[in-house]
Amino acid sequence: MTAQTTTVYAYAAPAPKAPLERVTIARRALGTHDVLIDIKYAGICHSDIHIARAEWGEGGFFPVVPGHEITGVIAEVGPGVTRYAAGDRVGVGCFVDSCRECENCRAGLQQYCTGETGMVGTYSATGRDGQPTQGGYSQSIVVDEDYVLRIPDALPLDAAAPLLCAGVTTYSPLAYWQAGPGKKVAVVGLGGLGHLAVKIAHAMGAEVTVLSQSLRKKNDGLHLGADHYHATSDLSTFTALAGSFDLILNTVSAGLDLGAHLGLLKIGGTMVQLGVPEHPQSLSAFPLVAQRRSLSGSLIGGIPETQQMLDFCAAHDIAADIELIRADQINEAYERVLASDVRYRFVIDTATI
Amino acid sequence: MTAQTTTVYAYAAPAPKAPLERVTIARRALGTHDVLIDIKYAGICHSDIHIARAEWGEGGFFPVVPGHEITGVIAEVGPGVTRYAAGDRVGVGCFVDSCRECENCRAGLQQYCTGETGMVGTYSATGRDGQPTQGGYSQSIVVDEDYVLRIPDALPLDAAAPLLCAGVTTYSPLAYWQAGPGKKVAVVGLGGLGHLAVKIAHAMGAEVTVLSQSLRKKNDGLHLGADHYHATSDLSTFTALAGSFDLILNTVSAGLDLGAHLGLLKIGGTMVQLGVPEHPQSLSAFPLVAQRRSLSGSLIGGIPETQQMLDFCAAHDIAADIELIRADQINEAYERVLASDVRYRFVIDTATI
Repeated sequence: MTAQTTTVYAYAAPAPKAPLERVTIARRALGTHDVLIDIKYAGICHSDIHIARAEWGEGGFFPVVPGHEITGVIAEVGPGVTRYAAGDRVGVGCFVDSCRECENCRAGLQQYCTGETGMVGTYSATGRDGQPTQGGYSQSIVVDEDYVLRIPDALPLDAAAPLLCAGVTTYSPLAYWQAGPGKKVAVVGLGGLGHLAVKIAHAMGAEVTVLSQSLRKKNDGLHLGADHYHATSDLSTFTALAGSFDLILNTVSAGLDLGAHLGLLKIGGTMVQLGVPEHPQSLSAFPLVAQRRSLSGSLIGGIPETQQMLDFCAAHDIAADIELIRADQINEAYERVLASDVRYRFVIDTATI
Repeated sequence: MTAQTTTVYAYAAPAPKAPLERVTIARRALGTHDVLIDIKYAGICHSDIHIARAEWGEGGFFPVVPGHEITGVIAEVGPGVTRYAAGDRVGVGCFVDSCRECENCRAGLQQYCTGETGMVGTYSATGRDGQPTQGGYSQSIVVDEDYVLRIPDALPLDAAAPLLCAGVTTYSPLAYWQAGPGKKVAVVGLGGLGHLAVKIAHAMGAEVTVLSQSLRKKNDGLHLGADHYHATSDLSTFTALAGSFDLILNTVSAGLDLGAHLGLLKIGGTMVQLGVPEHPQSLSAFPLVAQRRSLSGSLIGGIPETQQMLDFCAAHDIAADIELIRADQINEAYERVLASDVRYRFVIDTATI
């Protein structure tokens, strides 16, 4: 058992907005319930860029190692670990701890932890050793087994990595609002989240429509499983599809015309915000009141639901469409994410770190 | 059977913002499925004032006779009427017709009619005779029996009148979002809607909290059935009650701090807008995403649910707290409504018209 901290290579942003560079970081000594994971792959999520550039407000810890879409193999387990053994294929998502005592934690909804610590982020939070947590752009990570997921054998480790954030972020609201046969689901935006939302909603049996700014990715969308594809830059879309959908997942973080999109919902329909736009948006209550509609929000998923999502994806042959990159391509990849120039998720081969 | 139109006295706004005055209006000849109702009482709803003052945009028909909280007694029935007979105690709410063919109408959700006519308002809409509909500040009205409610014997006709709009506007979301034992419900605003929301939510078995600007009406609120009463002008209310409620009914039409109020909801909780503020409001997605909350809307109720509400109120001895007025006091009453100087609903004794 590793009684001391271990030093490993990682890619970190040394300061806000500075390019990421190769650094060494310490991983905590293996605790009783910890596992040491040899990281194989780490997806690049848009949140990584926000944090690396300190775009979500002042503060944050620098240097910061981003990455919360992590897959790898267990290298070593603490003496109290019961569910994992060396060699197991595992994943880590957006959080590595929580209070474990609040009502939400007890219900397996750790992402909504209301305890004093709140959900402890995989990076840029304070770990139980009092040090800033550091994420997946790294050779290894130490995590309590309760916050580790099992990657089913049917899923490749590289394309499974983005499921840990983008996958569960879309799976959770689709499950909660009961996407399935007979339900019409729209996905706003066909990016990292959107392309998985289409695959998952289609696998759940829903009739899926992509609402994208243009028709540029239409062939992709249909190939991913969408039944319909419409451009929101064409305003006639909003009249043609008025009152059509049971559920809309908004995967776009930029502000959009909430009223126009809410008008696309059937009576009793729900539009779910999966991101938080930088600025407050303008909302008229009219489209809500007129047809008993709802505007809701959803945040990733808890540990049990993340495992459920991975098992669902394995059973339905779903993983992310990825572009595998070397660690020295991370900064370039960030620019391409910002330019929406990726189909549909960059994944870092951490062997190149 | 009345084969001709009948001329009756009414109170109408002759032009936008002009005081209401006594006029004569024509009621259509009794059709096969129509009933003629001798109106006994008509509640004064804030919407009446908006329409009489053309505050909801240009257009509208003038002169207009407001009033969509109507109770009375059947005077005569058309030859095809099957459910009502002369002498029956009945009511009419916010609409007197709808398309009857759309999915919502077929489901008894006429208030959300998506047909060509939409829901036909009790006043200021176009009736089936091609004439503007005229409301309840009148001696009588002719309505298709399908849009008439039965007033249970246990309910007094005067205090029952406000149930036809204010009652069902609050009952419907309480029923839809399942207020009941074990649920914590907050009612924002203690006016015409709010005082009925408190009574109904309490009767459903929920734990009820009033959130009012001040503590001025606290004794009333507790007497009406609230378990708790807090002032929203005291900002510590928002920290003390953070994450407390399953359901919040917002009965206030003026804009309020949506984010602060959404923060009062538990995980998965819903805040329901019952009115449409004049201007769009500012909304951050954060409180929605952070705890999977929803901001929703609800509009009155359909015919079956309105009847259900009346029967529920009869069974639980619920009616509005009213101030009965003469017709020549309507203009003064309007000023007092605007000054929130009524506990809690004005009802016109239509015998004084």
